[in-house]
Amino acid sequence: MARNSEKFEAIRVTVLAGGIGGARFIRGLTQSTIVKEFMAERFPGRELEVTVIANTGDDIWIHGLRVCPDLDSIMYTLGGGISAERGWGRENETFTAKDELAAYGVEPTWFGLGDRDIATHLVRTTSLNSGYSLSEVTQALCTRWQPGIRLIPMSDDRCETHVVVDHPDTQSRVAIHFQEWWIKYRASLPAHDFVYVGKDQARPAPGVLDAIANADLVILPPSNPVVSIGTILNIAGIRDALKNTSAPVIGVSPIVNGAPVRGMADACLSAIGVETSAAGVALHYGSRTSGSGLLDFWLVDTSDSDSVEEVNAAGISCSAIPLMMSDVEITGAIARTALSLALPSTLNASS
Amino acid sequence: MARNSEKFEAIRVTVLAGGIGGARFIRGLTQSTIVKEFMAERFPGRELEVTVIANTGDDIWIHGLRVCPDLDSIMYTLGGGISAERGWGRENETFTAKDELAAYGVEPTWFGLGDRDIATHLVRTTSLNSGYSLSEVTQALCTRWQPGIRLIPMSDDRCETHVVVDHPDTQSRVAIHFQEWWIKYRASLPAHDFVYVGKDQARPAPGVLDAIANADLVILPPSNPVVSIGTILNIAGIRDALKNTSAPVIGVSPIVNGAPVRGMADACLSAIGVETSAAGVALHYGSRTSGSGLLDFWLVDTSDSDSVEEVNAAGISCSAIPLMMSDVEITGAIARTALSLALPSTLNASS
Repeated sequence: MARNSEKFEAIRVTVLAGGIGGARFIRGLTQSTIVKEFMAERFPGRELEVTVIANTGDDIWIHGLRVCPDLDSIMYTLGGGISAERGWGRENETFTAKDELAAYGVEPTWFGLGDRDIATHLVRTTSLNSGYSLSEVTQALCTRWQPGIRLIPMSDDRCETHVVVDHPDTQSRVAIHFQEWWIKYRASLPAHDFVYVGKDQARPAPGVLDAIANADLVILPPSNPVVSIGTILNIAGIRDALKNTSAPVIGVSPIVNGAPVRGMADACLSAIGVETSAAGVALHYGSRTSGSGLLDFWLVDTSDSDSVEEVNAAGISCSAIPLMMSDVEITGAIARTALSLALPSTLNASS
Repeated sequence: MARNSEKFEAIRVTVLAGGIGGARFIRGLTQSTIVKEFMAERFPGRELEVTVIANTGDDIWIHGLRVCPDLDSIMYTLGGGISAERGWGRENETFTAKDELAAYGVEPTWFGLGDRDIATHLVRTTSLNSGYSLSEVTQALCTRWQPGIRLIPMSDDRCETHVVVDHPDTQSRVAIHFQEWWIKYRASLPAHDFVYVGKDQARPAPGVLDAIANADLVILPPSNPVVSIGTILNIAGIRDALKNTSAPVIGVSPIVNGAPVRGMADACLSAIGVETSAAGVALHYGSRTSGSGLLDFWLVDTSDSDSVEEVNAAGISCSAIPLMMSDVEITGAIARTALSLALPSTLNASS
């Protein structure tokens, strides 16, 4: 069917996301009734077309399998396969192969390699070894999961986050893979620095820069600002694409009432000298209008409403709303606020 | 401790084996009380030192994993991990990853890839990809399973059995991997020929030729004469090593009462024009003394005792005993007969 009127064009939203927090936000954005009703009312006849650019800095080879935790969290969450309890990995998961690997005495033993999950990693690994790019493999995996979004890795190239720590056994300063720091040590070893191995060679995956440039709205969901969104912003061209897009950029604070909603973002923020607060993260991203930053809008939790003034003063339009993503509809309400505040009014012109 | 007398030297038995049948025979040989008592009586103070040369022609890449069915059947059977019911794969096995792979729509779906088993394949695959040989990897896996034997693949090189068939969909003549023929088609497609891919390049693994040359006894257990033992004999130098060893060679018929005890050996034998009978297999192996064959001794089941005369007439010393390997001790009785008949009396000289 020909698109003969602008009013039938999709509203294009691009999200830069890490794993669990990002995935839950996107589920609210794309699967809640509250957002569907908002769209039908404000943009009748127009679809919400969501592209997600996912962090792949956490990716790791585990027992010869290529594991992409954030891509999988998003794919499983939106495709209905995620473990509701854990927030990562598959529902009704078993860990038989993991226990057997431990019985062979092979490391690592700390990674939660589920039996269902292994199938995903086998398909991915054999496809990558056959010469397909991570983008292509991700698209293929999504034909099963039908996440209802376009899911793109930030890069098809290897760019892995490593953490500089003092090793607890030897006290010598070493860089360990992010997953080892995050899972094995629960981020308890002070991080002296983050090193992004491959950063200078990694290019954005096909479609990444276009998705930012051609978006009607860009959202930074409540993902880790350092090792999720920060990692994506490290890839050559992505930060500039965000600065230069004509779309507004809105961020949702991952810090609520002075602490990460989930995960150990405080350990990451303190490593790079950023205060663990809703305002601290906003100022870390910076203002597009009055500086060289990335944000036009910022959402903080009502418990952090005293930070609104500070963020506004920095040139970022800030609002306080409830940010706890308790279920799909409550999360949808956050997404609706983001759309409502930040989607340009010019989009309504033809409706 | 110094070995200061020949009587403390081990009795060295070398077995050429396929999967289930070979594994069960070797368990009787090495784990039954009846063989231990025989050894203690006949060779006091001397250990039975068993080397198993395993068929690797069935080996296959499945979803990027290197699977070695016969090596694993032997390792699991002797290490106490085998499924008693199936005879292959692990006890208490689950097939979660296999079902998930099918949900992704990736082939093959017909291979019984268990979750416990996957751990073995992951360790093997990562080790092979790191540059270790299959012999080295097998030895490493055996440090967990402690099979009580020295287990060596016939070759560290790839030599895969393919089967020439008329494809059921297209009727065109094609070569398919042995596992596809055996498992997917249950050997129901008539085999026009067996093709051993890599045969001309494959060399025996380290230790294979020495294990045959330096044995006190060589046993061909009731394994498939075509695609198990026949495949091993295809590797350059192994057939000659068998012909030239000073050790006697005794075979145990895999055919009982005109049919394979297990598996579909008849489909393999008919493909190469050998009668599916205890005598047919013996004559296929041939006599060492009165021809260019491999056998000094041959054991047939009591139900096939009318074939004893024919085998004897061909220059192979034949006896009929019960050959059903119902449990470890009954299997041990077969092994004891083999040792008793074929171990040279000169071995007793120093005891």
